Amino acid sequence: MEYGQFCPIAKAAEVLGEKWTILILRELLYGSNRFIDFQAAIPGISPTMLTKRLRDLEEKGVVEKQDHDYLLTQCGEDLAPLIRQYAIWGMRWAR
Amino acid sequence: MEYGQFCPIAKAAEVLGEKWTILILRELLYGSNRFIDFQAAIPGISPTMLTKRLRDLEEKGVVEKQDHDYLLTQCGEDLAPLIRQYAIWGMRWAR
Repeated sequence: MEYGQFCPIAKAAEVLGEKWTILILRELLYGSNRFIDFQAAIPGISPTMLTKRLRDLEEKGVVEKQDHDYLLTQCGEDLAPLIRQYAIWGMRWAR
Repeated sequence: MEYGQFCPIAKAAEVLGEKWTILILRELLYGSNRFIDFQAAIPGISPTMLTKRLRDLEEKGVVEKQDHDYLLTQCGEDLAPLIRQYAIWGMRWAR
């Protein structure tokens, strides 16, 4: 099957497929809004990388920045069922 | 929140987070089983990279190879709801 760039799965994977993005979304969905909270919750991410990933998510309309808070847009909130599937599968299978 | 390596979301992201993996799983879930079919369906993936990704999935217990066919294990079949969420979110939001 040839979907190329018009496949919605491929489009979503483009947004979500960068390293750390799923973990940043996990924190946002848990209610974290501050840079410092993401840093504390995601061991191993550098400040430069975290800045870059948050900017990517802003550009893609998943997150918006208000003063020092990062907030999920509706588009971002709609990722909750997807992240929940990561948790469900991870609990069952990941080693 | 500090989950580190014991967070099931992080564990799942380790398996699924490499480039191309979501698209290979999409093809397997659609019923493709052969190397040549993955290649045809995923423009831009090199044979070397496809071999590597399939081997990763085998190592992680998501796929098993029987003769020339790649088959989803139960662990892999259980990714169907997750990949479906990619499609749902992608149809609604991805630009």
